[in-house]
Amino acid sequence: MGTGRLESFSDGVLAVAITLLVLNIAVPGLNRTANGATLAHHLASQWPVYAAYVTSFLTIGIIWINHHAMISRLARADHSILILNLLLLLTVAVIPFATSLFAEYLRADHGAKLAAGVYGGILLAMALAFSALDRQMMLRRPQLLKDELSLEQRRRILARARAGLIPYVIAAGLAAVSPYATLVICLGLAVFYALPVASGIGI
Amino acid sequence: MGTGRLESFSDGVLAVAITLLVLNIAVPGLNRTANGATLAHHLASQWPVYAAYVTSFLTIGIIWINHHAMISRLARADHSILILNLLLLLTVAVIPFATSLFAEYLRADHGAKLAAGVYGGILLAMALAFSALDRQMMLRRPQLLKDELSLEQRRRILARARAGLIPYVIAAGLAAVSPYATLVICLGLAVFYALPVASGIGI
Amino acid sequence: MGTGRLESFSDGVLAVAITLLVLNIAVPGLNRTANGATLAHHLASQWPVYAAYVTSFLTIGIIWINHHAMISRLARADHSILILNLLLLLTVAVIPFATSLFAEYLRADHGAKLAAGVYGGILLAMALAFSALDRQMMLRRPQLLKDELSLEQRRRILARARAGLIPYVIAAGLAAVSPYATLVICLGLAVFYALPVASGIGI
Amino acid sequence: MGTGRLESFSDGVLAVAITLLVLNIAVPGLNRTANGATLAHHLASQWPVYAAYVTSFLTIGIIWINHHAMISRLARADHSILILNLLLLLTVAVIPFATSLFAEYLRADHGAKLAAGVYGGILLAMALAFSALDRQMMLRRPQLLKDELSLEQRRRILARARAGLIPYVIAAGLAAVSPYATLVICLGLAVFYALPVASGIGI
Repeated sequence: MGTGRLESFSDGVLAVAITLLVLNIAVPGLNRTANGATLAHHLASQWPVYAAYVTSFLTIGIIWINHHAMISRLARADHSILILNLLLLLTVAVIPFATSLFAEYLRADHGAKLAAGVYGGILLAMALAFSALDRQMMLRRPQLLKDELSLEQRRRILARARAGLIPYVIAAGLAAVSPYATLVICLGLAVFYALPVASGIGI
Repeated sequence: MGTGRLESFSDGVLAVAITLLVLNIAVPGLNRTANGATLAHHLASQWPVYAAYVTSFLTIGIIWINHHAMISRLARADHSILILNLLLLLTVAVIPFATSLFAEYLRADHGAKLAAGVYGGILLAMALAFSALDRQMMLRRPQLLKDELSLEQRRRILARARAGLIPYVIAAGLAAVSPYATLVICLGLAVFYALPVASGIGI
Repeated sequence: MGTGRLESFSDGVLAVAITLLVLNIAVPGLNRTANGATLAHHLASQWPVYAAYVTSFLTIGIIWINHHAMISRLARADHSILILNLLLLLTVAVIPFATSLFAEYLRADHGAKLAAGVYGGILLAMALAFSALDRQMMLRRPQLLKDELSLEQRRRILARARAGLIPYVIAAGLAAVSPYATLVICLGLAVFYALPVASGIGI
Repeated sequence: MGTGRLESFSDGVLAVAITLLVLNIAVPGLNRTANGATLAHHLASQWPVYAAYVTSFLTIGIIWINHHAMISRLARADHSILILNLLLLLTVAVIPFATSLFAEYLRADHGAKLAAGVYGGILLAMALAFSALDRQMMLRRPQLLKDELSLEQRRRILARARAGLIPYVIAAGLAAVSPYATLVICLGLAVFYALPVASGIGI
């Protein structure tokens, strides 16, 4: 099976997930802003929503870039590739929920660490699914690749995908210490991958 | 008419439906978690939402894989193919509603069996629409297929699609006994189709 | 400019609009079904929601089929085609709102006729936008068509698109008499266009 | 890397964002229209919602047309192009939020100017991101273009993109004076770009 519809379906899911994130940004109700507190105050006070939004948007965007690069190496896909790709899309599709949970609880007295752990954990699951798909392509189904790559080359590509796991392990783990640490690492990571210096570095 | 836009529109609907499922996963409100019950408790208590989410996500994903395989046999589409495909998309597009209904009522004192019946019934309707489209292609419009297949071959392909109906008949029927049975069968089925052993078996 | 991205963007908007319709089907809250009335009663009582859903789903699906056939005649698009297509997409994109309004007010003591008028009016606006786009292609920009068609042929194609306006004028007009008439005509029309006999008849 | 998936992902995000706008148009609740005020009154009173909807719909539609024209000049994309395109999509993806905020506060006693400023500011950010992407293509990565263009030609293309910034600077700035001025300029601009005379003028 060719990769055309695999790409088009994946693009669709990634595009919908990245755009649905905006539904998490609430417009303060007129009645809430009527009682003294100004709209400016309300908009400013929901900064965790914006921070989580930008983090998730950039992260999904970068996953798209990396997914694009990964799939472009495939000449065709088999059942195992399609299913692993579906699992990757599942982890991306729940990011809007995790983002909303994280933003809602970041400054709460209780639950903030758990919410940060869920957020970091879902990004980690996404990176794990990405690695699993890469491993399937590089080690188990090299015959599906467009170009013949040496085992050495394939191992190097996979090692790069796996190195991308480490920061997410740290981000999820640090949630037990401080939810802000998780936010800073995830946002910093997304910004880093967007920099010119990160061109060609997979998540 | 070529199948390019048929595929691209179907991919779009399937991608949107599968990604909209996440809107069913609610973030517990801050005020609800303030009164004693922890966020962990609230998140854990909505496990039916996660179970129904994963079931529906995998089911739509597998329908996409099967749809992909089915349409790739077509050289071009006529009005009847487009309309039957539209009916298939209609059954998929209501899955987010059925999923939400099922998760909300799974543990309720009343309505659980009906909600499970609606869920199983919609998945059954989807499988029926899939079979009807396959039948149109295999028996009534073989001239639209890319390759010339013998009647024998076409009947075998159709028989496989029809065999996929049986578990959904059981899942919908068992809703009258236990909503959990419906959940277990539908989730088990989705996981089964995702296994390597199920490669090439249509829903 | 080629028509590839025109088709892909239009497919995207139509696929999102048709799939968003499901958000109008509400799951009855657990607390509402606890007070005597059963879930079955609640689900049955919202039949206008299902009727409006099916009507709008089939209508958008048929517009997609007709749009597909229309654009496939184009070799390339100019600014006027892109803008008229955008206006057509605008009328389709508001259908989820009109559907929800119609379903909510169909049986209300007040507002039912207005809601039906808005619904019929938006479908009429969609058919008008479709005709306007067809007219631009057939009469004003025939040089953009793939095949050279005689003025006679182009007029016949346009006349068919315009004939599709009539039932929507009736549907919108009858809203002043009975909202049920609007529903029956719009649903009947969508079903008619889906029948084999309607193959090749534009909206 | 080719531009195929860049276009398909961008089309997806733009199509979802433009279609999600409809979620901002609320259906007046039956209970609200029961107390004297008619549905007609309620529908008429939310005219800012419709005005903001049409403005945002046309603006995203025109950005799509311009994006299409811009990307069609590219033979292939590098990391910097993908990231700048992602930032452009980020500004478009938040338009549904800005639209809802603007419509909600347009006639409020407080917050109207801020809401208009946010709306104008986001459209300005979109135009800035568009210019930045154009500059990257025209001045920094001319080797990625399909056709060899003289520096003179590339500067002219970029100057046109930059000229499109000016009205948004004015629209955002005038929010401090009157939110209606922002609405009139943004809507007028969208309509102007849709006119035949504006064919070929970039935002």
